[in-house]
Amino acid sequence: MISGVLLDLAGVVYDGDKAIAGAVDAVARLRAAGLPIRFVSNTTRSPRPAVLRRLAGFGLPVEEEELFTPAQAARQWLRQHGCSPHLLVHPDFKTEFDGMPEGGRRAVIVGDVGESLDYAKLNRAFRELTRGAELLALANNRSFKDADGILSLDAGAVVAAFEFASRAQAIVLGKPSPEFFLSALAGMGCPPDEAVMVGDDAESDVAGARSCGLGALLVRTGKYRAGDETRFDPPPSAVVADLAAAADWIIAHAKDG
Amino acid sequence: MISGVLLDLAGVVYDGDKAIAGAVDAVARLRAAGLPIRFVSNTTRSPRPAVLRRLAGFGLPVEEEELFTPAQAARQWLRQHGCSPHLLVHPDFKTEFDGMPEGGRRAVIVGDVGESLDYAKLNRAFRELTRGAELLALANNRSFKDADGILSLDAGAVVAAFEFASRAQAIVLGKPSPEFFLSALAGMGCPPDEAVMVGDDAESDVAGARSCGLGALLVRTGKYRAGDETRFDPPPSAVVADLAAAADWIIAHAKDG
Repeated sequence: MISGVLLDLAGVVYDGDKAIAGAVDAVARLRAAGLPIRFVSNTTRSPRPAVLRRLAGFGLPVEEEELFTPAQAARQWLRQHGCSPHLLVHPDFKTEFDGMPEGGRRAVIVGDVGESLDYAKLNRAFRELTRGAELLALANNRSFKDADGILSLDAGAVVAAFEFASRAQAIVLGKPSPEFFLSALAGMGCPPDEAVMVGDDAESDVAGARSCGLGALLVRTGKYRAGDETRFDPPPSAVVADLAAAADWIIAHAKDG
Repeated sequence: MISGVLLDLAGVVYDGDKAIAGAVDAVARLRAAGLPIRFVSNTTRSPRPAVLRRLAGFGLPVEEEELFTPAQAARQWLRQHGCSPHLLVHPDFKTEFDGMPEGGRRAVIVGDVGESLDYAKLNRAFRELTRGAELLALANNRSFKDADGILSLDAGAVVAAFEFASRAQAIVLGKPSPEFFLSALAGMGCPPDEAVMVGDDAESDVAGARSCGLGALLVRTGKYRAGDETRFDPPPSAVVADLAAAADWIIAHAKDG
């Protein structure tokens, strides 16, 4: 019986600059059914206010606490472990860590830094690691499709560099990390076996969530390609056309439904 | 029976800015015994002319062809494979690749770039890899003791970043890569089982050389620490006090000795 819902954003709620047909209504129906929702996104370039503005533009007002990103997971981790952040992130993204403690034990936070990444920044972070700082990866992607349509180096490469040089093991905070899903659920007091994740990425969203005990629905929108449902293990709980169909499925399986 | 000699530089021939006692004379005795020598060093910051000037300053004139560095190994590799270099190396080090072919198949050459490393340089090299360029590592060190006495990020970290992001496997050209030792020997027409390597690094110099069929003498100078001779596999052929003692051993085991 489901008592909490996690929704991916790109490819599930919107595609490019448009909301996916039926998605805004589907979210309204989940809310009307009394189900708490977290929107979970791996973005490490757009700070939370920009994501919220984008959703509001689709006619989908989302409360700040309903949006869960790797930066949010990092803030939770820092608080729980009493660490202050050493940021190696995009300049636009630093505001995500406003108000975090300074001094004391340190954790190096690695995101997609973008064009301003240089040796001095890399080496300052590396030296923090050699002094015993933890290594936190906001995401672990190898590459991304850049503005010119060509693949560019992503945050995962910097994480790999630090893991090799410092012999540390990074804690990956974004999807498909179990901690990411579990932190999002903890924020709404929902146990994993009463939660369902809806995503278009059969590996990161679906197999990732299923691996830590959640149910997971694979939608056939966004980056979904035929056969994705059998490509990764564990497989989805169900495959549905889109978020509208996912909402039907979830409401039929809801605790109070 | 020995017919060729490989000598490490730092810690064997010199230590800091001084020649090690007896080292210059030892080299002269090896030469008088008719043994061809290659000086093998992993440096990827000092170009060859600077290394040769340094040795000459110790009263040890060395012919250009007697000095074998990862850059030399890279030039050989490029010629053998008909590739042109895409350089990600220290600006002072680019002269090492003067006269190499341009265009055609590419190989990304990674060394210790130093302070001028930035995202644009990293991403240009990464894009060459995604277009099928080979990945050549001049060295694979995790870190080095910087001018301020603190460890700094070394070339191996960049190699690890590229291996992760492009799923390529780097060809490591410096010690302890078998190709490095074998290329140095090929240049003097010496088969591995007639060659001996002399080094102060029980892992990179000694176990590395022994792994590809050379004999190897561990000297108790430079970075040698008590017990190093039993720390790595395979162990040295013999442990000697210094290069002077190594020369005695080699001349006693020489083909024409």
